[in-house]
Amino acid sequence: MVKEQAHTVSSYEQELDQVRGMLVRMGGIVESQMAMAMAAIVDRDEDAAMEASERDPQVDELEREVETLSIRLLALRAPMAGDLREIVAAMKISGDLERIGDCAASIARRTLRLDAGDARLSPGGLRTMGRLVQENLRRAIDAMSQQDSERAVEVWQSDAAVDELYTAMFRELVTYMMEDPRTIRSCTHLLFIAKNLERIGDHATNIAERVYFAATGEQLPVVRPRGLPVV
Amino acid sequence: MVKEQAHTVSSYEQELDQVRGMLVRMGGIVESQMAMAMAAIVDRDEDAAMEASERDPQVDELEREVETLSIRLLALRAPMAGDLREIVAAMKISGDLERIGDCAASIARRTLRLDAGDARLSPGGLRTMGRLVQENLRRAIDAMSQQDSERAVEVWQSDAAVDELYTAMFRELVTYMMEDPRTIRSCTHLLFIAKNLERIGDHATNIAERVYFAATGEQLPVVRPRGLPVV
Repeated sequence: MVKEQAHTVSSYEQELDQVRGMLVRMGGIVESQMAMAMAAIVDRDEDAAMEASERDPQVDELEREVETLSIRLLALRAPMAGDLREIVAAMKISGDLERIGDCAASIARRTLRLDAGDARLSPGGLRTMGRLVQENLRRAIDAMSQQDSERAVEVWQSDAAVDELYTAMFRELVTYMMEDPRTIRSCTHLLFIAKNLERIGDHATNIAERVYFAATGEQLPVVRPRGLPVV
Repeated sequence: MVKEQAHTVSSYEQELDQVRGMLVRMGGIVESQMAMAMAAIVDRDEDAAMEASERDPQVDELEREVETLSIRLLALRAPMAGDLREIVAAMKISGDLERIGDCAASIARRTLRLDAGDARLSPGGLRTMGRLVQENLRRAIDAMSQQDSERAVEVWQSDAAVDELYTAMFRELVTYMMEDPRTIRSCTHLLFIAKNLERIGDHATNIAERVYFAATGEQLPVVRPRGLPVV
C-alpha cells in the first residue's frame, strides 16, 4: 500500500513536471517568434516573418495540451494549496503565451505588407520598444520556469516604460502620415505593430502576475504601475 | 451522516451557482459597456463614453472573485467531469469577459479623442460592425448562461462575417486618410476602434468555444471558420 502511494505521488509529480515542461516549450517558441518578428521589423527579413507566422499552430496545440493535462491532474489528483494554484496559473499562463504567439505572428505578417520604400520609417523607435518587450518577455518566462516571485514583481513594474514608448510611437507615426500622406498605408501597419508590441508587454505582465500568485498565494494590486494612460 | 452529506452537496451547488451568477453579472456589465461604446461611436455620446470606461474596475474585480471562488471550489470539493470542466471554463470565460470590458472601455475613450469635424467619418461601417459584434456577444453570453452548446456553435460560425467587415473598414479608413490628410488623427483612432470591435468578436467566439467544451467535453476545431485573413 505504501508502495502504491509512493507510485501515485511520483506519477503526480511527473504529470506536474510535464505541464511545466509544456509551458517552458511554449515560452521557447513564442520567444523565438518574437525574435523573428523583430528581425522582420528591423532587417525586413521576410523568411523570419514567414517562419514566425508558421510556428503559431504549435503554440495553439500546446495550449490545448496544457489544458487537457491540467484538467486531468485536477480530476485525478485533486491537488491542494500551492499545487492547485500552480495548475490554475498554468492554464491562464498558457492562454497569455498563446496570445503572445498570435501578436508576434501578426507583427511578422504586417512587415510583409510594408511598402519597400518606407523601410526608413521608424525602425529606431520600434527597435527600442521591441527590445524592451523582448527583455520583459524573457524575464517573465524565466520567472515562470523558476517560480521566482521577485523577478515576477520586476516584470510587473517595468511595463509602464513600454506604455510610454508606445504612446510616443503613436504620435511619431501620426506625424509621419501628416507630413507625407504617401506613407499612410505603411504607417497604419506600423501603428498596429507598435500596438501588438504593447500587448505582448501586457501579456508578459499578466504572466508575471500569475507567477506571483502561484508562488505566494497573494495577488498583486489590481492597478498596475503605469506611464501615460493607453487608450 | 446522510443529512451532513446532503448539506455538503447543497452548499457545493450554491457555490457553483454563485460562480455562474458572477459570470452572468460580468456578462451584463460588459454588454452595457458595449452598448455605451456604440452610443459613443454613433451618437458621439460623451457621457456614455465615460460611463463605459468607469465600469471597467467592476469587471476586473469580478474576474478576481470568479478565480478565488473557483479555486476554493476546486480545493474543497474536488469536482469531477462536467462540473470540473464548467469551473475551468468559468475561469477562462471570466478572462475573456474582462478583455471585452477593456476593449469596450478603450473604444469609448478613443471616441472622446476624435476631432469634432470628423463626426461624419464612417459611422455607417462601424455601426454595422458594432451591431454584429453586439449580437454575437449577446448570443455568447446567452449560450453561457444557458449552457447551450448549439447556440455556442452558431456564435463560433458567425465570427467570419466580423473579420470581413473589419478588413473592409480598414481599407475604407486608409482611403479616407489618403484623400484628406486632415482626417489622419481621427482615422487612426477609428482604425483602433474597428480593431477593438474585431477583438470583442474574437473573445465572444472564445467564450462560445469554452461553453461548448464545458457542455460536451469536446473541443471545437482549432481552426475557426474565417473570412479573409486578419493580420
